[in-house]
Amino acid sequence: MIKVGILGYGNLGRGVEAAIKMNGDMELCAVYTRRDPDSVTLATEDVPVKSTADLDSGKEDIDVLIICGGSATDLPEMTPKYAAMYNVIDSFDTHANIPVHFANVDKAAKSAGKVGVISCGWDPGMFSLNRLYASAVLPNGKDYTFWGKGVSQGHSDAVRRIDGVVDCRQYTIPVPAALDRVRNGENPELTTREKHTRECFVVAEDGADLARIENEIKTMPNYFSDYDTTVHFISAEEMKRDHSGLPHGGSVIYSGETSDGTNHVIEYSLKLDSNPEFTGSVIVAYARAVARLNAEGKAGAMTVFDIAPAYLSAKSAEELRAHCL
Amino acid sequence: MIKVGILGYGNLGRGVEAAIKMNGDMELCAVYTRRDPDSVTLATEDVPVKSTADLDSGKEDIDVLIICGGSATDLPEMTPKYAAMYNVIDSFDTHANIPVHFANVDKAAKSAGKVGVISCGWDPGMFSLNRLYASAVLPNGKDYTFWGKGVSQGHSDAVRRIDGVVDCRQYTIPVPAALDRVRNGENPELTTREKHTRECFVVAEDGADLARIENEIKTMPNYFSDYDTTVHFISAEEMKRDHSGLPHGGSVIYSGETSDGTNHVIEYSLKLDSNPEFTGSVIVAYARAVARLNAEGKAGAMTVFDIAPAYLSAKSAEELRAHCL
Repeated sequence: MIKVGILGYGNLGRGVEAAIKMNGDMELCAVYTRRDPDSVTLATEDVPVKSTADLDSGKEDIDVLIICGGSATDLPEMTPKYAAMYNVIDSFDTHANIPVHFANVDKAAKSAGKVGVISCGWDPGMFSLNRLYASAVLPNGKDYTFWGKGVSQGHSDAVRRIDGVVDCRQYTIPVPAALDRVRNGENPELTTREKHTRECFVVAEDGADLARIENEIKTMPNYFSDYDTTVHFISAEEMKRDHSGLPHGGSVIYSGETSDGTNHVIEYSLKLDSNPEFTGSVIVAYARAVARLNAEGKAGAMTVFDIAPAYLSAKSAEELRAHCL
Repeated sequence: MIKVGILGYGNLGRGVEAAIKMNGDMELCAVYTRRDPDSVTLATEDVPVKSTADLDSGKEDIDVLIICGGSATDLPEMTPKYAAMYNVIDSFDTHANIPVHFANVDKAAKSAGKVGVISCGWDPGMFSLNRLYASAVLPNGKDYTFWGKGVSQGHSDAVRRIDGVVDCRQYTIPVPAALDRVRNGENPELTTREKHTRECFVVAEDGADLARIENEIKTMPNYFSDYDTTVHFISAEEMKRDHSGLPHGGSVIYSGETSDGTNHVIEYSLKLDSNPEFTGSVIVAYARAVARLNAEGKAGAMTVFDIAPAYLSAKSAEELRAHCL
């Protein structure tokens, strides 16, 4: 059994917990939280909730620590810190800072003889793999990533910070005409606005100025101003009834030539009922790889690019060749 | 530069040749043929055509030998033979015999300190990878593979062997209703007949009994009797005009749950203008990996499951993290 610890029990931590239950060779040994452990109730029975302070001894009996923190401030500090004591894995997704984060985790993990996998999930993660495989097979080509239809938690949070907004769920939606052009191998140049639209379902305070809220959303720099955005005001009951899930998905589409006029289109797409449960499932498969790689004596930072696929599966090499090849 | 030799100059050999031109770090050094070398003209200038006998010295100056032979009789003999002298890669696709072929290549390659990759292409190959990744991420799920729309050379050849048939092109076509059910996450049980239909374009001899030919096709065991097959008789001119390409493609669709009622659908699909050029492109990317792995001191048989994705790309690890992750 591979002994797993989860650090952080938000949406992603619960997604990882659900994923561990699907894997007979993985055992959840503890959940570590910055909150009062007594205030946290797990979905899994008989697993202790501990304080993050308990990790500081470096002596917790776990093969891998899955760090479920935010990329903005948690992971840049946590992942290198714990990589100096445990095998770790995170879902760091602040793209511009990946080189620094990788270097920090690599240094800590190498010194400690541990493995640290960063930026694991579906994007970065499974989508990245598909960008790499496709571009390696067809070097003369171009990749496109579309996200959605799905809930963007970052955009939902940004709307919630507007004065007069009680709650928001923001859906990112690929533009069908853009998808069609890419799937047809046209290799179009597409602007941000041409690729995705945004749709917001907003619960406003009683008596709030809805026109002002709608305008503030649509003109918000970085988040909405470069997109065509639709805003719907709904009741708290409608929000709960119709928008309580966290579905997501998207497509990586790669189009490339092997000779003049001979084109190929590769598409990888996901339709996910639960973004955190799927992300947690990817992380758990890579946690298996982390434990195995470290058991083989490997150390340092890695990404999904550095890990042979067979390490992810509970099946033996013989079984994989017989049933998947 | 990675020095590549191609053994066999049929459709696949020419596809590999086209792929090498797309990769600036790969150099085609020689094509080896069982035919009279003087009878073979390459699409690439200034590359020698040699006899397969020249390989027997074990001293040809190549980093990887790409073996473009048939799975029925060529590869079981050739790949172990040359793995004892060179790094090799093949596209062996007789599924039931993979364990034996793997063992034979492994023994020869290990003794020689060489790497031998078998069963590389898109199925087995890229489709296998997607079955593995999906089943590792979602162990509680089910995979479906659909092929086409595309030309099956095996089925085309089978029809050509019928008395009175001059030429045939056979298209394998997925059944849209089956695709829809799988994409909807229904996890249906599908019979062979429910998954694919077959469509044959046949040029018959003058005065041949078309009804007999059609009946022989539709009732042919293994190839057609389990499918709904449509037969069209066309002229040799129509064959040349409308069916001279070798397009193919298909989808691996995987549907699995992470908790009760929470389902996810992963789909990988290919639309290929040229089956041999795409297969050749996959093999060339893995030939890069073969050369690199052997340069690191690795030896023995491997499949796509055993090779970390970064080995396939001409880009550095830093570039990959910056641009693909």
